[in-house]
Formats: sequence, C-alpha cells, structure tokens
Amino acid sequence: MRILLVGAGGVGSAITRIAARRDYFEHMVVADHDLGRAEAAVAAVASAEGAGSRFGAARVDAADRAAVAGLLREHRCDVLLNATDPRFVLPLFGAARDAGAHYLDMAMSLSHPHPERPYELCGVKLGDDQFARAGDYREAGLLALVGMGVEPGLSDVFARYAADELFDEIEEIGIRDGANLTVDGYDFAPSFSIWTTIEECLNPPVIYERGRGWFTTEPFSEPEVFDFPEGIGPVECVNVEHEEVLLVPRWVDAGRVTFKYGLGDDFIAKLKTLHELGLDRTAPLTVPTDHGPAGVSPRDVVAAALPDPAGLGDRMHGKTCAGTWVKGVKDGEPREVYLYHVVDNQWSMREYGSQAVVWQTAVNPVIALELLATGAWTGTGVLGPEAFPARPFLDLLTAYGSPWGMREQ
Amino acid sequence: MRILLVGAGGVGSAITRIAARRDYFEHMVVADHDLGRAEAAVAAVASAEGAGSRFGAARVDAADRAAVAGLLREHRCDVLLNATDPRFVLPLFGAARDAGAHYLDMAMSLSHPHPERPYELCGVKLGDDQFARAGDYREAGLLALVGMGVEPGLSDVFARYAADELFDEIEEIGIRDGANLTVDGYDFAPSFSIWTTIEECLNPPVIYERGRGWFTTEPFSEPEVFDFPEGIGPVECVNVEHEEVLLVPRWVDAGRVTFKYGLGDDFIAKLKTLHELGLDRTAPLTVPTDHGPAGVSPRDVVAAALPDPAGLGDRMHGKTCAGTWVKGVKDGEPREVYLYHVVDNQWSMREYGSQAVVWQTAVNPVIALELLATGAWTGTGVLGPEAFPARPFLDLLTAYGSPWGMREQ
Repeated sequence: MRILLVGAGGVGSAITRIAARRDYFEHMVVADHDLGRAEAAVAAVASAEGAGSRFGAARVDAADRAAVAGLLREHRCDVLLNATDPRFVLPLFGAARDAGAHYLDMAMSLSHPHPERPYELCGVKLGDDQFARAGDYREAGLLALVGMGVEPGLSDVFARYAADELFDEIEEIGIRDGANLTVDGYDFAPSFSIWTTIEECLNPPVIYERGRGWFTTEPFSEPEVFDFPEGIGPVECVNVEHEEVLLVPRWVDAGRVTFKYGLGDDFIAKLKTLHELGLDRTAPLTVPTDHGPAGVSPRDVVAAALPDPAGLGDRMHGKTCAGTWVKGVKDGEPREVYLYHVVDNQWSMREYGSQAVVWQTAVNPVIALELLATGAWTGTGVLGPEAFPARPFLDLLTAYGSPWGMREQ
Repeated sequence: MRILLVGAGGVGSAITRIAARRDYFEHMVVADHDLGRAEAAVAAVASAEGAGSRFGAARVDAADRAAVAGLLREHRCDVLLNATDPRFVLPLFGAARDAGAHYLDMAMSLSHPHPERPYELCGVKLGDDQFARAGDYREAGLLALVGMGVEPGLSDVFARYAADELFDEIEEIGIRDGANLTVDGYDFAPSFSIWTTIEECLNPPVIYERGRGWFTTEPFSEPEVFDFPEGIGPVECVNVEHEEVLLVPRWVDAGRVTFKYGLGDDFIAKLKTLHELGLDRTAPLTVPTDHGPAGVSPRDVVAAALPDPAGLGDRMHGKTCAGTWVKGVKDGEPREVYLYHVVDNQWSMREYGSQAVVWQTAVNPVIALELLATGAWTGTGVLGPEAFPARPFLDLLTAYGSPWGMREQ
C-alpha cells in the first residue's frame, strides 16, 4: 500500500509516528502547504528507519484538487489520507477519485445551517456533499471511508460493536467526550484545532430520532453531567454538531443518536464571546497588514493567536476520553454500557512524543488503513466506520498498545 | 485660526459638524488615511456652508511625521487637532512642533507597563513621552494642549473648577463614567473605539496618592457602584488606566485621584476573554490573507469584526455621562459633589447626526480651540486642561447648547 498523507499538523505528524511502527504499507508521502512542516514530520520518523525510509515529504495546496491528484499519480498512491481541517475535505475527496485512489478522512464535508430555521431544521448536513457523490466512488470500485478518526471513527466502531454483540434493541446511542487535561503556563490553550472546535461547537447541534430523522437545536443545548472513567470523573456535556449523529443511523438501528462534548463552562463562555464579537466567522474582513490592506478570516486570527495544540504536549497533564454510551435491551433485560478509549498524555508523550488528543485521533486511521491493506475491511462507495465489522478494529487497537474499555452502567 | 484636523472617524466627523456652527476659525483641513472618509466628512458640512466653504479634505498617513508637517505648512495651519487613535500621538505631536503649529489631542502618548511589577509600579506612564518634550514646545512658544476630549478633557476642567470655586481642601477626585446606552440588533456593539477601550481597560490601572505618587493595580480593581444622574442610575465601575490620573495632580492639589469606568460585568468578561485568547495584542501575527501570508495585529481584527461605533447612532438609545466626583472640605464642612455632563443620544443624533459618545468627545476640543482663538486661554509647553481657568470653558459648553450639571452628594 502506498499512502498520500495530506496535512503534517499535529494529527498528521502523530500518524507518521504511529505508522512508522507498522509494516503494512510500502511508502507514505507526507504533504503540507508548508514544506518545512512536512519535512520535519518525515525527519522525525525517517531517522529511525535509516536509509531506504518509507517516508517522503512534498509541498501541496490541499485546496488545489488538480495538484493533489497529480501528486497521487506521481507517487502511484493507492490511498489519500486527509489530515487537514474540514475546509479541505471536498477538494481532497475529489482529487482521490480523479486519481483512482481510495480516500480516508477524520471529519466530513461541512454543514450549512437551514436558512430560515437553523435551530430546528437541518440545512446541508455534515457529509451530505460526500454522500451525494457516493456513486462516483462506487462505480470506480473505490472506497471513501469517511469520519475515521477517534470521534467520529472509533466512536462509530463502538456503536457497531454494541449493535452486533451487546444489544438486541438500541434505544439511544450517545457519543460522550470528556477530559481532565490542563496546560501549564497558559490562561487558555485548547488541546485540539480551534478552527474545528469553533466550527463544531457553534454550528446548530444535530440530533437523530427514529421516525423524526435529523433535526437541530440551539448550540450548547441539553446539558448533562456525564461521569467519565479512569479518574476523569463528572464533566458537564452539551450537544455539539458531530459526524457520528449523521453516520451511525445509516448503518445501526437506534431510537436516538446524540453527540455531547464535555466543554466546561469556561470554554463555552469563551466560544460564545467569540461568536458575539464575530470572531468565529470565516468570511474575510479587510484589515491593515504589513503588506497593505488584505482580506483576513477572523477565525484564522483566533487560531494564530493561540498556541499550536500539537506543541503543547510537554505542558499538558491528564487524560482524554472518547466513547459511546448505549442504552437498550439485551435478552429481554434493560442494559446500559459505555464503551470508551482513554489516552493519558504522559503515556502518549513518552511513547510517541504526541499529545493525547492528537494521538488519539491519529491512531484510528492508521488502524483502518491496516485493515484495508490486509483485506479485513473491504468496500466501495462512501462508507462510515460502522459499515465494517467492529471486532477486528477493536482487537487491532489493543494490539497497538492502546486498549479500549467497557463499563456496564 | 487655520486648523488641520487629522482623523475623520466618528470623533473627527463630529468635530467638523460642531465646528461648522462656529465662526472663530478661518479654515479646517480634514485629513485621513482614507481620503473618501475625509471627503465625506467635508461634504456633510460644506453643503451647509455653500460656496467658499471653510472645509477641505486631504489624504495623510498619521504615522508619517514629515508628511503631516508638510500638510501643516502647505495649508498654513496654526494648530493640529489630533482625532486619531493613540498610536499616532507621537508622530502627530512631533509634526506639529516641526511645522511650528500648536497641538491638541484627546488621548495622550501610550504607557508601557513596568517590566517586573506591572500591577504595583508604573513603567512608562500615559503622556510621559509628551511631557518629556515639553521644553521643545515651550522654547518654540507653542502650546500642546493634551487630553482635551471629554475624558480626559472636560473631566479635568471639572477638577480645576472644583479646586478653584467649590473646595478649600480636596481629599479625593474620582472621574466616573457611566451610560445606559443600548444598540438595537447587535449582541455586542461598543459605543466607542474598541482599540482604545482595550488599551485603557487591559493596561494596569493607575492611581495617584499624595505622598505615594502614581502606582498601579490589577485590571478591573476596586469595583464600586456609582449612581449616575439624569435617569442613568447605578452602574458598577472599576479602575481603568486613564489620562486624568496623570494630569490632575500636576495642577490640582488632591489627596487621591482615580478613574473608574462603568463597564458592566458582560463587557469586563468579554475584555478578559479577548486577553486570555491573546486577541487584545497589537504585535502582528502571521496569518493567511487573500494576498498570501502577512502580519496582522489581532486587535485590528477585533476592531474590524465589530460594527463601526460612529455608524451606530441610529440604533442607539440612552444617555452617556462623564463627570468628576470630588470629596473634600469647604468652609470647614465636609463636602462631596459630582460635576457631570450628560448627552442623550436622541438629542445628539437629531441635532448633529452624531451618536452621543463621539459627540461628547468631539465638542470639547472645538470649545478649547475657540478659547485659544479668542485668547481666553493662553499658554506654552505641554499643558493639560486643568492648567487653564475652568469657568470660560464651562460657560462656553453651555453656550454650545449642551449644559453641564452639579449634584451635591
């Protein structure tokens, strides 16, 4: 298998470090708009592999579909792994199809709120633009495996596992994400891309209900305190727009599907302030620059003003938990479980030099590619992680040294 | 008198509208980095004056001291009135001196916090860079009248009036600023320059005490509820860095001088968030722009994301109050007064088409220039408003149709 990884940020760099320990692929090209960043990611793993390293670096603009397709062809890549932010999903998804390559991502094409009733009805949903082109992939015998990080990704695998092995009937599936991470020396330092966090937290959260389908609510709706395992403890979680709510109901029969994120009061207040000040917006404003007036996206400035989350690992402490809470019936009895995956930042920094949140995202597409390389997972068209058997994935996650857990509630 | 007004923003435009009704000056050149803005300000007043209008427009970069001096000479101006934000104080202050013109501003040269103990000791204080060059002005027989808006400005005139006519001995002078303004249709729309508001609110507040001199505290310190007159009512006020604290003690004997601003909880929380996110900073960050990567000041982006306060007058309701609270002794009896000036937005919009906060700032330098033109005020060097007799100023303010008030507490 020959892989083109687009994006050498936090998640992309962690992907190279995890993949370097596996032998299922022949070559990985690491491409970024900043060649230096791609080269740094490659240098960090190539030194261990020595002469004949399987990693190479390239410069590419992820928005340039033709350039990405050219890079896939030039390096005869079988698959494009997209580790950029969601703005680049569509050009990369198109480029893989153009070049006859499979495609994986960790976030789906962006939503657009309903023009009149944004907090009741869905407009364009997450992934709609990709599912609309599923025929292109299917006809070409290609697979686009979408939402294959940790959330979405592992959380969807957990949902499929629950449906296959733990429940006869599922009343509700609720993805629940929480952490007790702190960062020394910063008033405020998000542990994941602020661009993506703003996007998912300020968009109208989407909910699925059997019979009603998908609908939306006000941001930060339905707060609940969820008790996270392995010492993290209770965290207040609120509804957030997330891919699982769009993916799970396509393959798993459930009465209700939600996603709640343990943001905490302080973080919610900051996001609300960014919104009230108009600093969450992506449309450019004309501002003075050192090269004269130019159009600048306020959200890019927010991201630039904050520390790069990928570089915070040395100052971070604590654990992050991703998981899927499932309520239903098994053998005529009510059952409730939480299937989860916890990463301790101290462990991920020691083992991989990657902070916990980006490492936890990165490990899952590396596993999925291995399942595709070995033929354990096969398919064509646009499929979510829950379209595939869950057990091989979960076993391989444990084999990668990062076991998952299950709590009966 | 021939005047060069630099800055055709909200305050600058209001200055032209107020000055257009007075006959003490011969010509006013309105200069801005955006010529269209200067032309619009001129057009709004020139139509009323008809042929032979006293107003003309010019383009100038306020940071370019030589260009500003050239413009002063070209138009044979006697005085430069600075209506830009405080970043441009030093080049404009220098340009006026170079060209042999008097100088007025409404905010003084910027402070720099103490490098080790910013919340205890002063570093470079507001106006220090101007007072250090007072000799240049004095030797040339020129006057730099600094801090001549409403606050600083009218508030300083009130302090001098209290010392001259109301008290034998002053224990404390506290400038207190509050409003009950609302803006329809915006979650958040500051009624004054956010650039300046961030600067004054996030810098360490400065306090003066007899015997101790100037010192600083934490931002937003010493909250107190102050009851504002004319229906505004009680507003929570906190210490903020402001010029009056630096100006008043130079000419008025007082035991303590403070400035407290009625920001309200919500506004304080937003300013704190901007600070925690690093968005209050002025040093440029490199961000993507539509002309490629460029250096952008985050605070400029915050300003660009918010509506222009000068354009909000039609949506604003309520009153703004600037004033000086004085506590001391008169004829052996304790006395406490609040000297104040209230502007109702409905009145200022109807009379001048300017919103209340910018109008209230703008009227004071127009009055001061009239007092200099008529010879009621004279002086050389760098002087604050309290260096001049207060009564002629207060009488002229009333004559301009905007009376001040006094409340015995």
